[in-house]
Amino acid sequence: MTDHDARTKVYVEGAHGIRVPFTEIALDDSPGTGEANPPFRVYDTSGPGSRPERGLPPLRREWIAQRDDVEAYDGRTRTLADDGRSAVRRGEASQEWQGERREPLRAKAGRRVTQMHYARRGIVTPEMEFVALREQCDVELVRSEVAAGRAIIPNNINHPETEPMIIGKRFLVKINANIGNSAVTSSIAEEVDKMSWATKWGADTVMDLSTGDDIHTTREWIVRNSPVPIGTVPIYQALEKVDGNADALTWEIYRDTVIEQCEQGVDYMTVHAGVLLRYVPLTAERVTGIVSRGGSIMAGWMLAHHEESFLYTHFDELCEIFAQYDVAFSLGDGLRPGSTADANDEAQLAELRTLSELTQRAWEHDVQVMVEGPGHIPLHLVEENVRLEQEWCHGAPFYTLGPLTTDIAPGYDHITSAIGAATIAMHGTAMLCYVTPKEHLGLPDRDDVKTGVITYKLAAHAADVAKGHPGARDRDDALSKARFEFRWNDQFNLSLDPDTARSMHDETLPAEAAKTA
Amino acid sequence: MTDHDARTKVYVEGAHGIRVPFTEIALDDSPGTGEANPPFRVYDTSGPGSRPERGLPPLRREWIAQRDDVEAYDGRTRTLADDGRSAVRRGEASQEWQGERREPLRAKAGRRVTQMHYARRGIVTPEMEFVALREQCDVELVRSEVAAGRAIIPNNINHPETEPMIIGKRFLVKINANIGNSAVTSSIAEEVDKMSWATKWGADTVMDLSTGDDIHTTREWIVRNSPVPIGTVPIYQALEKVDGNADALTWEIYRDTVIEQCEQGVDYMTVHAGVLLRYVPLTAERVTGIVSRGGSIMAGWMLAHHEESFLYTHFDELCEIFAQYDVAFSLGDGLRPGSTADANDEAQLAELRTLSELTQRAWEHDVQVMVEGPGHIPLHLVEENVRLEQEWCHGAPFYTLGPLTTDIAPGYDHITSAIGAATIAMHGTAMLCYVTPKEHLGLPDRDDVKTGVITYKLAAHAADVAKGHPGARDRDDALSKARFEFRWNDQFNLSLDPDTARSMHDETLPAEAAKTA
Repeated sequence: MTDHDARTKVYVEGAHGIRVPFTEIALDDSPGTGEANPPFRVYDTSGPGSRPERGLPPLRREWIAQRDDVEAYDGRTRTLADDGRSAVRRGEASQEWQGERREPLRAKAGRRVTQMHYARRGIVTPEMEFVALREQCDVELVRSEVAAGRAIIPNNINHPETEPMIIGKRFLVKINANIGNSAVTSSIAEEVDKMSWATKWGADTVMDLSTGDDIHTTREWIVRNSPVPIGTVPIYQALEKVDGNADALTWEIYRDTVIEQCEQGVDYMTVHAGVLLRYVPLTAERVTGIVSRGGSIMAGWMLAHHEESFLYTHFDELCEIFAQYDVAFSLGDGLRPGSTADANDEAQLAELRTLSELTQRAWEHDVQVMVEGPGHIPLHLVEENVRLEQEWCHGAPFYTLGPLTTDIAPGYDHITSAIGAATIAMHGTAMLCYVTPKEHLGLPDRDDVKTGVITYKLAAHAADVAKGHPGARDRDDALSKARFEFRWNDQFNLSLDPDTARSMHDETLPAEAAKTA
Repeated sequence: MTDHDARTKVYVEGAHGIRVPFTEIALDDSPGTGEANPPFRVYDTSGPGSRPERGLPPLRREWIAQRDDVEAYDGRTRTLADDGRSAVRRGEASQEWQGERREPLRAKAGRRVTQMHYARRGIVTPEMEFVALREQCDVELVRSEVAAGRAIIPNNINHPETEPMIIGKRFLVKINANIGNSAVTSSIAEEVDKMSWATKWGADTVMDLSTGDDIHTTREWIVRNSPVPIGTVPIYQALEKVDGNADALTWEIYRDTVIEQCEQGVDYMTVHAGVLLRYVPLTAERVTGIVSRGGSIMAGWMLAHHEESFLYTHFDELCEIFAQYDVAFSLGDGLRPGSTADANDEAQLAELRTLSELTQRAWEHDVQVMVEGPGHIPLHLVEENVRLEQEWCHGAPFYTLGPLTTDIAPGYDHITSAIGAATIAMHGTAMLCYVTPKEHLGLPDRDDVKTGVITYKLAAHAADVAKGHPGARDRDDALSKARFEFRWNDQFNLSLDPDTARSMHDETLPAEAAKTA
């Protein structure tokens, strides 16, 4: 049986017309005994497939409408500045979105439309039911974890194309893939392709970190085609709007950028609101200072203005905005260590204490929150990071970048970080932001994206197995049984990357007969 | 400054004409401040370089001779069967060794020539002094750890070409690279090249696991050219001598093979003497039975003969042989789990208890011992493996294959195992056997060898840093400082793989100016 025959997409049906996708892998009988091996189902993030210029169907539109708590409105008018200086110069974005343009939705006056809001009121949404079928768990676990803030379902009402997923330590460990253009390289088409490619291999969310031209339009194409939640760092776009001059940033420019992205459908946003003015001097003696781009933009702004960060002082306004669209906070760690030397230092931990405060403030608005974590951490200090985050931030989901466990292997930082990632996820991190081989060296290309995703899928899975997550080891056992019985095709098809496994095997033993021998 | 200018080999000199190699990396001044950055020295395993047909100079010959406890002798006459069935058929090996042939050495009657023997008598050998300079530690630490059995210096007196190194948890974590031909592929020249290639990138020892033709002659070429200790699994060659029919194995055939390899200069040998007849039934319910080749050969033999393993019943004779050449035991884990499902089960732990007994028996003969460990282990069970080994085997160095922390990523098992390897080394494993991307799929080629070595170097280093090994983080700090100061060339040159880091960077930003910007 070939790869393509053996792996098919199937749907598990639930109430409200819910259809949850899985990849079903057909398996051969055991040789000798003739024992039948039942087909194996795995979590599927690839979505139903789209034509990029059209986008995906709005799967959740009815669910959202039926709650009768949102209204369509004209929305903010897009300006050329949303696409950066080149677009202003040219008088147009490089490649306008061609598919359907829907009016943006927002909460009706006085309403909150977040999954946390519903969960706290005891309401089970179709999104929660979808997630429960996907995770093969009780829907009450989903509802109660979201209500308690220990899990989030990032689902902007303006991104109805998503297949709902959940981020929380009681659920499967998730992974995020970063994509995005920069001033130096890449096109809109390439970024859309990277997003689809990342979800094909298992990315649970995708962050669009574009910093170059056509930021608005690139994001439009990505959001409209993405079956998974999209995250952004709005300060990147805000900075483009002031020609890269951080001192010129204002709360108003930032707020408008956030609203622009809320209307487009961004599901979660990284906000570095925990970088306070008084923390900046704590980084002076570091080996690598401030390495977070958002953190250093805000540190520069605060030092130039001798003022507290507008992200912090206007945080409640941000919460009010997020509550109208169900955008989740990803509270950024702007002071994360950029080297193992700086790990778990006072700057990092001071910021984490502020993220604790911000988590509670967001929850007062029923806004969903996850908390970002480092970065570069020696292996013996990894566990402390998630332990402190869980304690201080009241169980809000932790979302870490790796961490890298050594600084000496540029070119292999997907691996230095997979070591830290598996370990931190075993101890309770809910989502892992991937690191590709290009980390520190350049922007990931298509191959790097795949390598990063597969590496993080295996790290997340190693953590699921180590946590004793229900059923997590079933796939290992099915593959191991296939391996022991020399069912080569089944071994390939059950693996995270059948293409690579098959081609490596064929380099040595190409004969088809050798695959069932 | 280019890569090749910046990295040079330097020697630190000690007594007895000892010259210990290091790679010295010249660094640029810090931009702006003009601060000078001192050159950085790293551990160097690449040896002085050889012409393969000649081999390396016998660095340790005088040290060995001056102890006046060895004698040259005629040695066992090589037979064509030593090179397998094809050589017998052809009447010759495929490519005879062309360099110097020295008469083998062995201990004079009644003498023991092991580093453990000297260490226990308070003698500091040149090998120990070499190791102390290399590890930048006190020589008394070296002597006392070897005397206590907590570290080994694998150094067959018939492999005087080696630069001594030490394996023990108080020292830098070491890595081993497996090479070796098989019935299917590869030539002698390819295997010698893989050995040199592996040591160029940092392999601390190399195991020749050849199972195909020309086993004896392939090994001769490898040993004569290797600056690092060579390990083997003698049962593989013994099996070739009986045409692959395990039932036909005898103690005598095995013993003669061991002596043949002792005379050639193999530094440590994997012996699966802990697989006892009564343990075999413990594997019946496993998902993956017995996956160790040596373990399954011996299990098959025992079941066929209804007898205890000759490796166990003749273990003291093996000790006597090893003591005459200073060959170290690598006590094999023939019942290691081949899947996460089988991890830490009764079969595995029963064998480990027997390895405890064998460790002590070897030590009674002053023979150096390390103990092999798995394999496939979920991350939460990894630490227990090294804790039990250290407790039960009285602190003998642990030498583990990974372990792989999930079974679902063939093609990426260097990564699934690096996660386990870094973790188990942090908890006390002394040497890590690499796993390449081809694990479970085929034999590693040159690229796979490099990927495996670099992956394991970074895992070992992550463990050194996590253990707080003296000075281990210095390299991370030097590289992080270079990174923060945009000294790109220094960042490349300080990395484990400057070529890859440089080329990945150049894909995005090729201009030379961009490397110091």
